[in-house]
Amino acid sequence: MFTNFKELEAYVLAQNTKKRIALANAHDEPALSAVVNAKRKGVVEGTLIGKQDMIIDMLHEMGEDEKDYEIINFDGEELEAAKIAVKLVREGKADIPMKGILQTSSFAKAILNRETGLIPEGGRRLVSQVGIFEYEGRFMMITDAAINIAPDVETQIGIVENALPVAKALGNDCPKVAVLSAVETYNEKMPSTVSAAEIAKRGIPGCIVSGPLALDGAISMESVKHKSIKNPVAGQADILLVPVIEVGNVLYKSITYIAGKTMASSICGASCPVIITSRADTPDSKYYSILLAVLRCLKA
Amino acid sequence: MFTNFKELEAYVLAQNTKKRIALANAHDEPALSAVVNAKRKGVVEGTLIGKQDMIIDMLHEMGEDEKDYEIINFDGEELEAAKIAVKLVREGKADIPMKGILQTSSFAKAILNRETGLIPEGGRRLVSQVGIFEYEGRFMMITDAAINIAPDVETQIGIVENALPVAKALGNDCPKVAVLSAVETYNEKMPSTVSAAEIAKRGIPGCIVSGPLALDGAISMESVKHKSIKNPVAGQADILLVPVIEVGNVLYKSITYIAGKTMASSICGASCPVIITSRADTPDSKYYSILLAVLRCLKA
Repeated sequence: MFTNFKELEAYVLAQNTKKRIALANAHDEPALSAVVNAKRKGVVEGTLIGKQDMIIDMLHEMGEDEKDYEIINFDGEELEAAKIAVKLVREGKADIPMKGILQTSSFAKAILNRETGLIPEGGRRLVSQVGIFEYEGRFMMITDAAINIAPDVETQIGIVENALPVAKALGNDCPKVAVLSAVETYNEKMPSTVSAAEIAKRGIPGCIVSGPLALDGAISMESVKHKSIKNPVAGQADILLVPVIEVGNVLYKSITYIAGKTMASSICGASCPVIITSRADTPDSKYYSILLAVLRCLKA
Repeated sequence: MFTNFKELEAYVLAQNTKKRIALANAHDEPALSAVVNAKRKGVVEGTLIGKQDMIIDMLHEMGEDEKDYEIINFDGEELEAAKIAVKLVREGKADIPMKGILQTSSFAKAILNRETGLIPEGGRRLVSQVGIFEYEGRFMMITDAAINIAPDVETQIGIVENALPVAKALGNDCPKVAVLSAVETYNEKMPSTVSAAEIAKRGIPGCIVSGPLALDGAISMESVKHKSIKNPVAGQADILLVPVIEVGNVLYKSITYIAGKTMASSICGASCPVIITSRADTPDSKYYSILLAVLRCLKA
Protein backbone atom coordinates (compact mmCIF):
# COMPACT_ATOMS: atom_id res chain seq x y z
CA MET A 1 0.00 0.00 0.00
CA PHE A 2 1.32 3.46 -0.89
CA THR A 3 1.52 5.68 2.16
CA ASN A 4 2.80 8.95 0.68
CA PHE A 5 3.31 10.87 -2.56
CA LYS A 6 7.06 10.19 -2.74
CA GLU A 7 6.45 6.43 -2.70
CA LEU A 8 3.84 6.85 -5.40
CA GLU A 9 6.27 8.86 -7.51
CA ALA A 10 9.08 6.31 -7.06
CA TYR A 11 6.75 3.51 -8.16
CA VAL A 12 5.54 5.34 -11.28
CA LEU A 13 9.07 6.33 -12.33
CA ALA A 14 10.29 2.75 -11.83
CA GLN A 15 7.67 1.45 -14.32
CA ASN A 16 9.37 3.46 -17.04
CA THR A 17 6.23 3.65 -19.19
CA LYS A 18 5.07 7.15 -19.93
CA LYS A 19 1.36 7.76 -20.37
CA ARG A 20 0.03 10.31 -22.85
CA ILE A 21 -2.17 13.19 -21.75
CA ALA A 22 -4.61 14.77 -24.21
CA LEU A 23 -5.02 18.34 -23.00
CA ALA A 24 -8.23 19.97 -24.31
CA ASN A 25 -7.89 23.72 -24.97
CA ALA A 26 -4.24 23.61 -24.02
CA HIS A 27 -3.69 27.37 -24.51
CA ASP A 28 -4.06 27.68 -20.73
CA GLU A 29 -0.97 28.51 -18.73
CA PRO A 30 -2.01 26.81 -15.44
CA ALA A 31 -2.93 23.47 -17.06
CA LEU A 32 -0.17 23.54 -19.67
CA SER A 33 2.51 24.24 -17.07
CA ALA A 34 1.31 21.21 -15.11
CA VAL A 35 1.73 18.98 -18.16
CA VAL A 36 5.13 20.51 -18.93
CA ASN A 37 6.28 19.92 -15.36
CA ALA A 38 5.10 16.28 -15.33
CA LYS A 39 6.74 15.72 -18.70
CA ARG A 40 10.03 17.08 -17.36
CA LYS A 41 9.79 14.68 -14.43
CA GLY A 42 9.47 11.89 -16.98
CA VAL A 43 6.00 10.54 -16.25
CA VAL A 44 3.93 11.72 -19.25
CA GLU A 45 3.90 12.80 -22.87
CA GLY A 46 1.57 15.54 -24.04
CA THR A 47 -0.86 15.96 -26.91
CA LEU A 48 -1.93 19.58 -26.85
CA ILE A 49 -5.25 20.48 -28.46
CA GLY A 50 -6.04 24.18 -28.94
CA LYS A 51 -4.84 27.43 -30.45
CA GLN A 52 -1.47 26.39 -31.83
CA ASP A 53 0.19 29.82 -31.88
CA MET A 54 -0.72 30.53 -28.28
CA ILE A 55 0.36 27.05 -27.21
CA ILE A 56 3.74 27.42 -28.90
CA ASP A 57 4.25 30.87 -27.36
CA MET A 58 3.44 29.49 -23.92
CA LEU A 59 5.77 26.52 -24.40
CA HIS A 60 8.58 28.86 -25.41
CA GLU A 61 7.98 31.01 -22.35
CA MET A 62 8.31 27.87 -20.23
CA GLY A 63 11.60 27.09 -21.98
CA GLU A 64 10.16 24.14 -23.92
CA ASP A 65 10.61 23.04 -27.51
CA GLU A 66 7.25 22.50 -29.25
CA LYS A 67 8.76 19.53 -31.13
CA ASP A 68 8.65 17.56 -27.86
CA TYR A 69 4.84 17.71 -27.93
CA GLU A 70 2.15 16.70 -30.35
CA ILE A 71 0.08 19.77 -31.11
CA ILE A 72 -3.38 19.61 -32.70
CA ASN A 73 -4.40 23.05 -33.86
CA PHE A 74 -8.04 23.71 -32.96
CA ASP A 75 -9.89 26.99 -32.53
CA GLY A 76 -13.60 26.38 -32.03
CA GLU A 77 -16.39 25.37 -29.62
CA GLU A 78 -14.99 24.20 -26.30
CA LEU A 79 -17.17 21.08 -26.33
CA GLU A 80 -15.53 20.13 -29.63
CA ALA A 81 -12.06 20.59 -28.12
CA ALA A 82 -13.06 18.23 -25.30
CA LYS A 83 -14.44 15.75 -27.83
CA ILE A 84 -11.11 15.66 -29.67
CA ALA A 85 -9.30 14.77 -26.43
CA VAL A 86 -11.87 12.07 -25.67
CA LYS A 87 -11.64 10.68 -29.21
CA LEU A 88 -7.85 10.37 -28.95
CA VAL A 89 -8.27 8.27 -25.81
CA ARG A 90 -11.00 6.12 -27.39
CA GLU A 91 -8.68 5.46 -30.34
CA GLY A 92 -5.78 4.53 -28.07
CA LYS A 93 -3.75 7.55 -29.18
CA ALA A 94 -3.76 9.02 -25.67
CA ASP A 95 -4.32 7.62 -22.18
CA ILE A 96 -5.67 10.46 -20.07
CA PRO A 97 -7.96 13.36 -21.05
CA MET A 98 -7.23 16.58 -19.22
CA LYS A 99 -9.16 19.84 -18.99
CA GLY A 100 -7.52 23.05 -20.21
CA ILE A 101 -9.31 26.39 -20.45
CA LEU A 102 -12.93 25.31 -20.82
CA GLN A 103 -15.98 24.84 -18.60
CA THR A 104 -15.95 21.70 -16.45
CA SER A 105 -19.53 21.06 -17.61
CA SER A 106 -18.49 20.97 -21.29
CA PHE A 107 -15.58 18.70 -20.44
CA ALA A 108 -17.85 16.34 -18.47
CA LYS A 109 -20.41 16.36 -21.30
CA ALA A 110 -17.81 15.11 -23.77
CA ILE A 111 -16.79 12.34 -21.37
CA LEU A 112 -20.36 11.28 -20.60
CA ASN A 113 -21.61 11.25 -24.21
CA ARG A 114 -23.36 7.89 -24.73
CA GLU A 115 -21.95 7.35 -28.23
CA THR A 116 -18.63 9.15 -28.28
CA GLY A 117 -17.70 9.42 -24.60
CA LEU A 118 -15.74 7.37 -22.09
CA ILE A 119 -18.49 5.66 -20.10
CA PRO A 120 -17.30 2.39 -18.57
CA GLU A 121 -19.13 -0.79 -19.64
CA GLY A 122 -22.07 -1.39 -17.33
CA GLY A 123 -21.17 1.77 -15.43
CA ARG A 124 -23.54 4.55 -14.53
CA ARG A 125 -23.06 7.96 -16.13
CA LEU A 126 -21.58 9.64 -13.09
CA VAL A 127 -18.32 11.51 -12.84
CA SER A 128 -17.06 12.56 -9.44
CA GLN A 129 -13.94 13.99 -7.90
CA VAL A 130 -11.64 12.43 -5.34
CA GLY A 131 -8.97 14.34 -3.40
CA ILE A 132 -6.14 12.49 -1.69
CA PHE A 133 -3.72 13.70 0.96
CA GLU A 134 -1.24 12.25 3.42
CA TYR A 135 -2.54 11.85 6.96
CA GLU A 136 -0.85 10.02 9.81
CA GLY A 137 1.23 7.68 7.69
CA ARG A 138 -1.39 6.84 5.10
CA PHE A 139 -3.41 8.29 2.26
CA MET A 140 -6.82 9.66 3.06
CA MET A 141 -9.42 10.38 0.38
CA ILE A 142 -12.22 12.96 0.21
CA THR A 143 -15.09 12.70 -2.25
CA ASP A 144 -16.75 14.72 -3.83
CA ALA A 145 -15.38 18.23 -3.30
CA ALA A 146 -15.81 19.59 -6.81
CA ILE A 147 -18.48 18.15 -9.12
CA ASN A 148 -21.66 16.79 -7.49
CA ILE A 149 -23.49 19.56 -5.63
CA ALA A 150 -26.09 17.83 -3.46
CA PRO A 151 -26.03 14.13 -4.35
CA ASP A 152 -28.93 11.90 -3.28
CA VAL A 153 -28.29 8.55 -1.59
CA GLU A 154 -28.03 6.68 -4.92
CA THR A 155 -25.55 9.20 -6.26
CA GLN A 156 -23.55 9.18 -3.02
CA ILE A 157 -23.23 5.41 -3.32
CA GLY A 158 -22.11 5.89 -6.93
CA ILE A 159 -19.53 8.42 -5.78
CA VAL A 160 -18.07 5.86 -3.36
CA GLU A 161 -18.07 3.19 -6.10
CA ASN A 162 -16.23 5.66 -8.35
CA ALA A 163 -13.62 6.16 -5.61
CA LEU A 164 -12.92 2.45 -5.04
CA PRO A 165 -10.61 2.01 -8.08
CA VAL A 166 -8.53 4.94 -6.80
CA ALA A 167 -8.23 3.29 -3.39
CA LYS A 168 -7.31 0.05 -5.16
CA ALA A 169 -4.63 1.78 -7.25
CA LEU A 170 -3.20 3.06 -3.97
CA GLY A 171 -3.12 -0.54 -2.72
CA ASN A 172 -6.22 -0.50 -0.54
CA ASP A 173 -8.59 -3.29 -1.62
CA CYS A 174 -11.21 -2.75 1.06
CA PRO A 175 -11.20 0.87 2.26
CA LYS A 176 -13.09 2.12 5.28
CA VAL A 177 -15.63 4.76 4.25
CA ALA A 178 -16.96 7.36 6.70
CA VAL A 179 -20.16 9.08 5.64
CA LEU A 180 -19.65 12.53 7.11
CA SER A 181 -22.09 14.73 8.98
CA ALA A 182 -21.72 17.10 11.94
CA VAL A 183 -22.64 14.46 14.55
CA GLU A 184 -22.67 10.71 15.12
CA THR A 185 -26.37 10.36 15.86
CA TYR A 186 -29.40 10.10 13.59
CA ASN A 187 -31.28 13.41 13.66
CA GLU A 188 -34.26 14.06 11.37
CA LYS A 189 -33.56 17.78 11.51
CA MET A 190 -30.13 17.21 9.97
CA PRO A 191 -30.74 15.48 6.60
CA SER A 192 -27.08 14.46 6.23
CA THR A 193 -27.45 12.13 9.22
CA VAL A 194 -30.50 10.51 7.63
CA SER A 195 -28.79 9.83 4.29
CA ALA A 196 -25.60 8.71 6.06
CA ALA A 197 -27.54 6.17 8.13
CA GLU A 198 -29.29 4.95 4.97
CA ILE A 199 -26.00 4.47 3.10
CA ALA A 200 -24.43 2.68 6.09
CA LYS A 201 -27.48 0.41 6.35
CA ARG A 202 -27.41 -0.48 2.66
CA GLY A 203 -23.67 -1.04 2.56
CA ILE A 204 -21.49 -0.88 -0.55
CA PRO A 205 -19.64 -3.94 -1.91
CA GLY A 206 -15.85 -3.63 -1.80
CA CYS A 207 -15.65 -1.39 1.23
CA ILE A 208 -16.74 -1.01 4.84
CA VAL A 209 -19.17 1.90 5.26
CA SER A 210 -20.26 3.66 8.42
CA GLY A 211 -22.09 6.86 9.24
CA PRO A 212 -23.09 9.39 10.25
CA LEU A 213 -19.68 10.37 11.59
CA ALA A 214 -18.34 13.83 12.35
CA LEU A 215 -14.81 14.40 11.01
CA ASP A 216 -13.18 13.73 14.39
CA GLY A 217 -15.20 10.56 14.80
CA ALA A 218 -14.00 9.50 11.36
CA ILE A 219 -10.27 10.17 11.63
CA SER A 220 -9.22 10.57 15.28
CA MET A 221 -8.90 7.52 17.54
CA GLU A 222 -8.47 9.92 20.46
CA SER A 223 -11.82 11.51 19.73
CA VAL A 224 -13.42 8.09 19.20
CA LYS A 225 -12.24 7.11 22.68
CA HIS A 226 -13.60 10.32 24.23
CA LYS A 227 -16.93 9.89 22.48
CA SER A 228 -17.08 6.11 23.13
CA ILE A 229 -17.96 5.44 19.48
CA LYS A 230 -17.85 1.78 18.58
CA ASN A 231 -17.72 0.86 14.91
CA PRO A 232 -15.06 -0.49 12.54
CA VAL A 233 -14.63 2.74 10.55
CA ALA A 234 -14.54 5.29 13.38
CA GLY A 235 -11.11 6.85 13.77
CA GLN A 236 -9.71 4.84 10.86
CA ALA A 237 -11.50 6.11 7.77
CA ASP A 238 -9.71 5.89 4.43
CA ILE A 239 -12.45 7.61 2.41
CA LEU A 240 -14.48 10.59 3.64
CA LEU A 241 -17.79 10.84 1.79
CA VAL A 242 -19.23 14.34 2.17
CA PRO A 243 -22.96 15.13 2.11
CA VAL A 244 -22.79 18.25 -0.10
CA ILE A 245 -20.17 20.00 -2.21
CA GLU A 246 -19.76 22.85 0.31
CA VAL A 247 -18.56 20.39 2.97
CA GLY A 248 -16.13 18.70 0.59
CA ASN A 249 -14.86 21.97 -0.77
CA VAL A 250 -14.22 23.57 2.62
CA LEU A 251 -12.53 20.39 3.85
CA TYR A 252 -10.37 20.14 0.74
CA LYS A 253 -9.37 23.77 1.01
CA SER A 254 -8.76 23.86 4.74
CA ILE A 255 -6.39 20.92 4.31
CA THR A 256 -4.62 22.80 1.52
CA TYR A 257 -4.61 26.33 2.91
CA ILE A 258 -4.79 25.95 6.70
CA ALA A 259 -3.06 22.60 7.27
CA GLY A 260 -0.70 23.36 4.35
CA LYS A 261 -0.85 19.83 2.96
CA THR A 262 -0.55 18.78 -0.65
CA MET A 263 -3.79 17.53 -2.15
CA ALA A 264 -3.95 15.56 -5.39
CA SER A 265 -7.22 15.34 -7.25
CA SER A 266 -8.59 12.71 -9.60
CA ILE A 267 -11.76 12.57 -11.65
CA CYS A 268 -13.48 9.19 -11.47
CA GLY A 269 -16.33 7.38 -13.16
CA ALA A 270 -15.04 7.37 -16.74
CA SER A 271 -13.41 4.35 -18.37
CA CYS A 272 -10.03 5.99 -17.78
CA PRO A 273 -8.62 8.46 -15.27
CA VAL A 274 -9.44 12.07 -16.09
CA ILE A 275 -7.57 15.16 -14.93
CA ILE A 276 -9.01 18.52 -13.96
CA THR A 277 -6.68 20.91 -12.16
CA SER A 278 -7.60 24.31 -10.79
CA ARG A 279 -5.79 27.59 -11.39
CA ALA A 280 -5.23 27.97 -7.68
CA ASP A 281 -3.67 24.50 -7.22
CA THR A 282 0.00 24.51 -6.25
CA PRO A 283 2.52 23.05 -8.72
CA ASP A 284 2.95 20.06 -6.36
CA SER A 285 -0.77 19.50 -6.21
CA LYS A 286 -1.05 19.52 -10.02
CA TYR A 287 1.96 17.26 -10.42
CA TYR A 288 0.66 14.65 -7.99
CA SER A 289 -2.77 14.81 -9.62
CA ILE A 290 -1.15 13.86 -12.92
CA LEU A 291 0.95 11.21 -11.19
CA LEU A 292 -2.17 9.72 -9.59
CA ALA A 293 -3.85 9.50 -13.02
CA VAL A 294 -0.77 7.73 -14.39
CA LEU A 295 -0.80 5.32 -11.43
CA ARG A 296 -4.46 4.57 -12.09
CA CYS A 297 -3.60 3.73 -15.74
CA LEU A 298 -0.79 1.45 -14.60
CA LYS A 299 -2.97 -0.33 -12.03
CA ALA A 300 -6.12 -0.55 -14.18
CA MET B 1 -6.03 43.98 18.43
CA PHE B 2 -5.18 40.59 19.90
CA THR B 3 -3.37 38.39 17.41
CA ASN B 4 -2.88 35.16 19.36
CA PHE B 5 -3.98 33.23 22.44
CA LYS B 6 -0.87 34.07 24.48
CA GLU B 7 -1.54 37.79 24.10
CA LEU B 8 -5.14 37.25 25.11
CA GLU B 9 -4.01 35.32 28.21
CA ALA B 10 -1.49 38.00 29.19
CA TYR B 11 -4.16 40.70 28.92
CA VAL B 12 -6.71 38.80 31.03
CA LEU B 13 -4.15 37.94 33.74
CA ALA B 14 -3.00 41.58 33.89
CA GLN B 15 -6.57 42.74 34.68
CA ASN B 16 -6.39 40.78 37.92
CA THR B 17 -10.18 40.42 38.20
CA LYS B 18 -11.38 36.86 38.27
CA LYS B 19 -14.77 36.08 36.78
CA ARG B 20 -17.06 33.45 38.30
CA ILE B 21 -18.27 30.49 36.25
CA ALA B 22 -21.56 28.79 37.17
CA LEU B 23 -21.15 25.20 35.97
CA ALA B 24 -24.50 23.43 35.50
CA ASN B 25 -24.37 19.70 36.28
CA ALA B 26 -20.77 19.98 37.33
CA HIS B 27 -20.36 16.25 38.07
CA ASP B 28 -18.77 15.96 34.63
CA GLU B 29 -15.05 15.27 34.45
CA PRO B 30 -14.37 16.97 31.06
CA ALA B 31 -16.12 20.25 31.96
CA LEU B 32 -15.06 20.26 35.61
CA SER B 33 -11.40 19.70 34.73
CA ALA B 34 -11.59 22.70 32.37
CA VAL B 35 -12.87 24.93 35.20
CA VAL B 36 -10.24 23.55 37.59
CA ASN B 37 -7.48 24.20 35.08
CA ALA B 38 -8.65 27.79 34.43
CA LYS B 39 -8.94 28.39 38.17
CA ARG B 40 -5.38 27.18 38.69
CA LYS B 41 -4.23 29.60 36.01
CA GLY B 42 -5.90 32.35 38.01
CA VAL B 43 -8.58 33.55 35.59
CA VAL B 44 -11.83 32.26 37.16
CA GLU B 45 -13.62 31.14 40.30
CA GLY B 46 -16.10 28.30 40.16
CA THR B 47 -19.63 27.74 41.42
CA LEU B 48 -20.36 24.07 40.87
CA ILE B 49 -24.00 23.00 40.62
CA GLY B 50 -24.77 19.27 40.68
CA LYS B 51 -24.35 16.06 42.63
CA GLN B 52 -22.19 17.23 45.52
CA ASP B 53 -20.61 13.87 46.43
CA MET B 54 -19.56 13.19 42.86
CA ILE B 55 -18.24 16.72 42.44
CA ILE B 56 -16.14 16.47 45.61
CA ASP B 57 -14.77 13.07 44.57
CA MET B 58 -13.81 14.44 41.17
CA LEU B 59 -12.17 17.52 42.74
CA HIS B 60 -10.13 15.29 45.04
CA GLU B 61 -9.03 13.15 42.13
CA MET B 62 -7.83 16.32 40.44
CA GLY B 63 -5.90 17.23 43.59
CA GLU B 64 -8.26 20.10 44.49
CA ASP B 65 -9.72 21.18 47.82
CA GLU B 66 -13.52 21.54 47.64
CA LYS B 67 -13.27 24.55 49.97
CA ASP B 68 -11.84 26.53 47.05
CA TYR B 69 -15.14 26.23 45.19
CA GLU B 70 -18.72 27.10 45.91
CA ILE B 71 -20.76 23.92 45.55
CA ILE B 72 -24.56 23.92 45.19
CA ASN B 73 -25.87 20.43 45.74
CA PHE B 74 -28.52 19.61 43.14
CA ASP B 75 -29.74 16.25 41.88
CA GLY B 76 -32.73 16.72 39.59
CA GLU B 77 -33.98 17.59 36.09
CA GLU B 78 -31.15 18.87 33.89
CA LEU B 79 -33.19 21.88 32.75
CA GLU B 80 -33.46 22.88 36.42
CA ALA B 81 -29.71 22.59 36.88
CA ALA B 82 -29.25 24.92 33.91
CA LYS B 83 -31.83 27.32 35.36
CA ILE B 84 -29.88 27.55 38.63
CA ALA B 85 -26.73 28.54 36.73
CA VAL B 86 -28.68 31.13 34.73
CA LYS B 87 -30.32 32.51 37.89
CA LEU B 88 -26.94 32.97 39.58
CA VAL B 89 -25.81 35.07 36.62
CA ARG B 90 -29.06 37.10 36.58
CA GLU B 91 -28.57 37.82 40.28
CA GLY B 92 -24.97 38.89 39.77
CA LYS B 93 -23.63 35.97 41.82
CA ALA B 94 -21.81 34.54 38.80
CA ASP B 95 -20.61 35.93 35.47
CA ILE B 96 -20.59 33.07 33.00
CA PRO B 97 -22.92 30.08 32.74
CA MET B 98 -21.23 26.90 31.55
CA LYS B 99 -22.63 23.57 30.44
CA GLY B 100 -21.68 20.42 32.39
CA ILE B 101 -23.19 17.01 31.72
CA LEU B 102 -26.55 17.92 30.19
CA GLN B 103 -28.09 18.27 26.73
CA THR B 104 -27.12 21.42 24.85
CA SER B 105 -30.82 21.88 24.03
CA SER B 106 -31.78 21.99 27.75
CA PHE B 107 -28.95 24.40 28.44
CA ALA B 108 -30.01 26.67 25.56
CA LYS B 109 -33.64 26.50 26.72
CA ALA B 110 -32.71 27.86 30.14
CA ILE B 111 -30.72 30.69 28.54
CA LEU B 112 -33.46 31.58 26.04
CA ASN B 113 -36.37 31.55 28.54
CA ARG B 114 -38.29 34.81 28.05
CA GLU B 115 -38.83 35.39 31.78
CA THR B 116 -35.93 33.73 33.53
CA GLY B 117 -33.26 33.53 30.83
CA LEU B 118 -30.41 35.68 29.61
CA ILE B 119 -31.84 37.29 26.49
CA PRO B 120 -30.18 40.64 25.73
CA GLU B 121 -32.42 43.70 25.70
CA GLY B 122 -33.81 44.21 22.22
CA GLY B 123 -31.95 41.13 21.06
CA ARG B 124 -33.42 38.25 19.12
CA ARG B 125 -33.67 34.87 20.80
CA LEU B 126 -30.81 33.28 18.94
CA VAL B 127 -27.78 31.56 20.39
CA SER B 128 -24.95 30.58 18.10
CA GLN B 129 -21.42 29.30 18.35
CA VAL B 130 -18.21 30.99 17.29
CA GLY B 131 -14.86 29.24 17.00
CA ILE B 132 -11.62 31.22 16.93
CA PHE B 133 -8.14 30.14 15.87
CA GLU B 134 -4.83 31.73 14.99
CA TYR B 135 -4.19 32.12 11.28
CA GLU B 136 -1.35 34.04 9.66
CA GLY B 137 -0.74 36.44 12.51
CA ARG B 138 -4.34 37.15 13.41
CA PHE B 139 -7.46 35.57 14.86
CA MET B 140 -9.95 34.06 12.47
CA MET B 141 -13.50 33.20 13.46
CA ILE B 142 -15.88 30.49 12.21
CA THR B 143 -19.61 30.60 12.88
CA ASP B 144 -21.74 28.49 13.45
CA ALA B 145 -20.16 25.04 13.71
CA ALA B 146 -22.23 23.64 16.55
CA ILE B 147 -25.75 24.94 17.16
CA ASN B 148 -27.73 26.17 14.14
CA ILE B 149 -28.26 23.35 11.66
CA ALA B 150 -29.48 25.00 8.45
CA PRO B 151 -30.03 28.69 9.20
CA ASP B 152 -32.09 30.79 6.78
CA VAL B 153 -30.83 34.18 5.61
CA GLU B 154 -32.38 36.03 8.58
CA THR B 155 -30.80 33.60 11.03
CA GLN B 156 -27.44 33.74 9.24
CA ILE B 157 -27.49 37.52 9.61
CA GLY B 158 -28.31 37.06 13.30
CA ILE B 159 -25.40 34.65 13.63
CA VAL B 160 -23.04 37.29 12.25
CA GLU B 161 -24.53 39.93 14.58
CA ASN B 162 -23.97 37.52 17.48
CA ALA B 163 -20.33 37.17 16.46
CA LEU B 164 -19.59 40.90 16.27
CA PRO B 165 -19.15 41.42 20.05
CA VAL B 166 -16.58 38.59 20.03
CA ALA B 167 -14.68 40.30 17.23
CA LYS B 168 -14.91 43.55 19.17
CA ALA B 169 -13.58 41.91 22.36
CA LEU B 170 -10.65 40.72 20.26
CA GLY B 171 -10.10 44.33 19.18
CA ASN B 172 -11.66 44.19 15.73
CA ASP B 173 -14.37 46.86 15.43
CA CYS B 174 -15.26 46.24 11.80
CA PRO B 175 -14.48 42.65 10.82
CA LYS B 176 -14.53 41.34 7.27
CA VAL B 177 -17.13 38.60 6.90
CA ALA B 178 -16.92 35.97 4.16
CA VAL B 179 -20.15 34.10 3.47
CA LEU B 180 -18.83 30.69 2.49
CA SER B 181 -19.89 28.41 -0.32
CA ALA B 182 -17.98 26.09 -2.65
CA VAL B 183 -17.55 28.71 -5.40
CA GLU B 184 -17.44 32.46 -5.96
CA THR B 185 -20.28 32.66 -8.46
CA TYR B 186 -24.06 32.78 -8.05
CA ASN B 187 -25.51 29.40 -9.02
CA GLU B 188 -29.18 28.60 -8.55
CA LYS B 189 -28.35 24.90 -8.28
CA MET B 190 -26.20 25.61 -5.22
CA PRO B 191 -28.50 27.26 -2.63
CA SER B 192 -25.59 28.42 -0.47
CA THR B 193 -24.50 30.77 -3.27
CA VAL B 194 -28.00 32.25 -3.45
CA SER B 195 -28.23 32.96 0.28
CA ALA B 196 -24.65 34.23 0.34
CA ALA B 197 -25.38 36.71 -2.44
CA GLU B 198 -28.54 37.81 -0.60
CA ILE B 199 -26.65 38.41 2.66
CA ALA B 200 -23.89 40.30 0.86
CA LYS B 201 -26.47 42.42 -0.96
CA ARG B 202 -28.31 43.31 2.25
CA GLY B 203 -25.16 44.02 4.22
CA ILE B 204 -24.85 43.91 8.02
CA PRO B 205 -24.07 47.04 10.07
CA GLY B 206 -20.75 46.89 11.91
CA CYS B 207 -18.95 44.69 9.43
CA ILE B 208 -18.05 44.31 5.76
CA VAL B 209 -19.80 41.31 4.21
CA SER B 210 -19.04 39.54 0.96
CA GLY B 211 -20.06 36.28 -0.63
CA PRO B 212 -20.33 33.73 -1.99
CA LEU B 213 -16.68 32.90 -1.42
CA ALA B 214 -14.98 29.52 -1.34
CA LEU B 215 -12.60 29.08 1.60
CA ASP B 216 -9.52 29.85 -0.47
CA GLY B 217 -11.18 32.94 -1.91
CA ALA B 218 -11.92 34.03 1.66
CA ILE B 219 -8.54 33.48 3.31
CA SER B 220 -5.79 33.18 0.70
CA MET B 221 -4.51 36.28 -1.12
CA GLU B 222 -2.55 33.94 -3.39
CA SER B 223 -5.74 32.20 -4.43
CA VAL B 224 -7.54 35.53 -4.83
CA LYS B 225 -4.81 36.61 -7.25
CA HIS B 226 -5.03 33.35 -9.23
CA LYS B 227 -8.81 33.62 -9.42
CA SER B 228 -8.79 37.41 -10.08
CA ILE B 229 -11.42 37.99 -7.38
CA LYS B 230 -11.93 41.65 -6.62
CA ASN B 231 -13.70 42.53 -3.37
CA PRO B 232 -12.67 43.96 -0.02
CA VAL B 233 -13.18 40.73 1.96
CA ALA B 234 -11.56 38.22 -0.41
CA GLY B 235 -8.33 36.82 1.00
CA GLN B 236 -8.68 38.85 4.21
CA ALA B 237 -11.73 37.46 5.98
CA ASP B 238 -11.90 37.72 9.77
CA ILE B 239 -15.18 35.85 10.14
CA LEU B 240 -16.20 32.82 8.09
CA LEU B 241 -19.97 32.41 8.01
CA VAL B 242 -20.87 28.84 7.00
CA PRO B 243 -24.08 27.91 5.17
CA VAL B 244 -24.91 24.76 7.19
CA ILE B 245 -23.66 23.09 10.36
CA GLU B 246 -21.91 20.31 8.44
CA VAL B 247 -19.64 22.85 6.73
CA GLY B 248 -18.81 24.60 10.00
CA ASN B 249 -18.26 21.37 11.83
CA VAL B 250 -15.94 19.84 9.26
CA LEU B 251 -14.00 23.11 9.01
CA TYR B 252 -13.70 23.42 12.79
CA LYS B 253 -12.55 19.83 13.11
CA SER B 254 -10.16 19.81 10.19
CA ILE B 255 -8.45 22.84 11.71
CA THR B 256 -8.25 21.01 15.04
CA TYR B 257 -7.38 17.49 13.90
CA ILE B 258 -5.65 17.92 10.53
CA ALA B 259 -4.01 21.34 10.87
CA GLY B 260 -3.40 20.65 14.60
CA LYS B 261 -4.40 24.16 15.66
CA THR B 262 -6.00 25.20 18.93
CA MET B 263 -9.61 26.28 18.55
CA ALA B 264 -11.46 28.21 21.26
CA SER B 265 -15.22 28.27 21.21
CA SER B 266 -17.72 30.82 22.52
CA ILE B 267 -21.50 30.78 22.69
CA CYS B 268 -23.03 34.08 21.62
CA GLY B 269 -26.42 35.75 21.63
CA ALA B 270 -27.11 35.79 25.37
CA SER B 271 -26.66 38.87 27.54
CA CYS B 272 -23.37 37.38 28.77
CA PRO B 273 -20.79 34.99 27.33
CA VAL B 274 -21.75 31.34 27.68
CA ILE B 275 -19.42 28.34 27.67
CA ILE B 276 -20.01 24.95 26.15
CA THR B 277 -16.99 22.68 25.80
CA SER B 278 -16.97 19.26 24.19
CA ARG B 279 -15.55 16.06 25.67
CA ALA B 280 -13.19 15.73 22.74
CA ASP B 281 -11.77 19.28 23.10
CA THR B 282 -8.12 19.43 24.11
CA PRO B 283 -7.24 20.98 27.51
CA ASP B 284 -5.81 24.00 25.65
CA SER B 285 -8.98 24.41 23.63
CA LYS B 286 -11.12 24.33 26.79
CA TYR B 287 -8.83 26.72 28.61
CA TYR B 288 -8.85 29.28 25.83
CA SER B 289 -12.63 28.96 25.50
CA ILE B 290 -12.93 29.96 29.15
CA LEU B 291 -10.37 32.70 28.70
CA LEU B 292 -12.31 34.06 25.73
CA ALA B 293 -15.49 34.19 27.82
CA VAL B 294 -13.61 36.09 30.54
CA LEU B 295 -12.24 38.51 27.96
CA ARG B 296 -15.76 39.09 26.64
CA CYS B 297 -16.89 39.93 30.23
CA LEU B 298 -14.00 42.34 30.64
CA LYS B 299 -14.65 44.04 27.29
CA ALA B 300 -18.46 44.12 27.56
